[in-house]
Amino acid sequence: MTQLRLDITTSLDGYVAGPHPTLEKPLGEGGELLHEWLFRLASFRAAHGMEGGEVNEDTPVFEESLGAGATIMGRRMFSGGAGPWESDPNANGWWGDEPPFHTPVFVLTHYAREPLVLGETTFTFVTEGIESALEQARAAAGDRDVAVGGGADVARQYLDAGLLDQLTVHLVPALLGGGTRLFAGAAPAELTPVRVVASPRVTHLTYRKGA
Amino acid sequence: MTQLRLDITTSLDGYVAGPHPTLEKPLGEGGELLHEWLFRLASFRAAHGMEGGEVNEDTPVFEESLGAGATIMGRRMFSGGAGPWESDPNANGWWGDEPPFHTPVFVLTHYAREPLVLGETTFTFVTEGIESALEQARAAAGDRDVAVGGGADVARQYLDAGLLDQLTVHLVPALLGGGTRLFAGAAPAELTPVRVVASPRVTHLTYRKGA
Repeated sequence: MTQLRLDITTSLDGYVAGPHPTLEKPLGEGGELLHEWLFRLASFRAAHGMEGGEVNEDTPVFEESLGAGATIMGRRMFSGGAGPWESDPNANGWWGDEPPFHTPVFVLTHYAREPLVLGETTFTFVTEGIESALEQARAAAGDRDVAVGGGADVARQYLDAGLLDQLTVHLVPALLGGGTRLFAGAAPAELTPVRVVASPRVTHLTYRKGA
Repeated sequence: MTQLRLDITTSLDGYVAGPHPTLEKPLGEGGELLHEWLFRLASFRAAHGMEGGEVNEDTPVFEESLGAGATIMGRRMFSGGAGPWESDPNANGWWGDEPPFHTPVFVLTHYAREPLVLGETTFTFVTEGIESALEQARAAAGDRDVAVGGGADVARQYLDAGLLDQLTVHLVPALLGGGTRLFAGAAPAELTPVRVVASPRVTHLTYRKGA
């Protein structure tokens, strides 16, 4: 069976987004510090339709995360939080006309909706819960892994259900002082460290399920 | 000037102690997972009057932390939380007759009290705040570094005041799901990673002040 993986960037004080997120600033106050290491990377920029960037110690770690054959995300991650979705359940979210996935995306939601095709990415809306989304994503991914795209609450649900096989925390050397916490209210669990990659900007910590 | 250093062990979900700490279980539920890596170490056991233990990848990191010439701690760390101190301001806390410090300890408190000598350790009670405690600890430490012993709130106060020069987070691959958070409510700040030491049990992340 292929693996269910989560890549998530967090501050040293454990926040995956700063306080007061908005549609324009979905990572909240100070949250841009979290993804600075990504915006430097040529391969991240290319995946998001931007030019320039560099190749550094973080590049291979990021490029691994591109290998998933399907992605599962929460509804707020699809729509950009306090976005137009709130008033219009058929809004297209904040990913634009060319979302960076290029593989099937399964969106966990309470609102049934027809699949949405944007560029090379098809968003399928799943109302039957996390196990159904995982089953559909595995079928779509074939022999490739499935990624949990986020947000933090969806990640915690897969972790608590024991469904997450591998977790990579990209730990940024900053304190945000508030915001959305990684794994808030998670069930007690032990993991096993499998790899550390350090760069001057971020420390990549990979764990597998179980002690 | 010598450095002010903090060594602190935290779970992957950012807790320095589990929920519901008591005098008998000062690290709360599940909190013993945090310090398992320490209790394995021969040098930690020797410093705390215990026999046995092993030498492994974590040994040199722990032994570095022994090098401080003075330690600053909060009153709850001295007395063991919900301990006899609550009703008896002259109680001796939970460190026993031979505390492991063997160097001067400065306890931040609101209650003035004469210094307390236990074994080779003198506890001096400081009511004038964190800067006074640091000044006294620096004078006592001579050319050695000063350690912030904890707890989490005292550590946060030194961090927020910009007084902490070096921080080592010992990141344990476990989720506690609740408890005392590392750096809760800290002011936003950027740090610089200076070293990572990984073992199968814990990842030691060292940062210095400033971006």
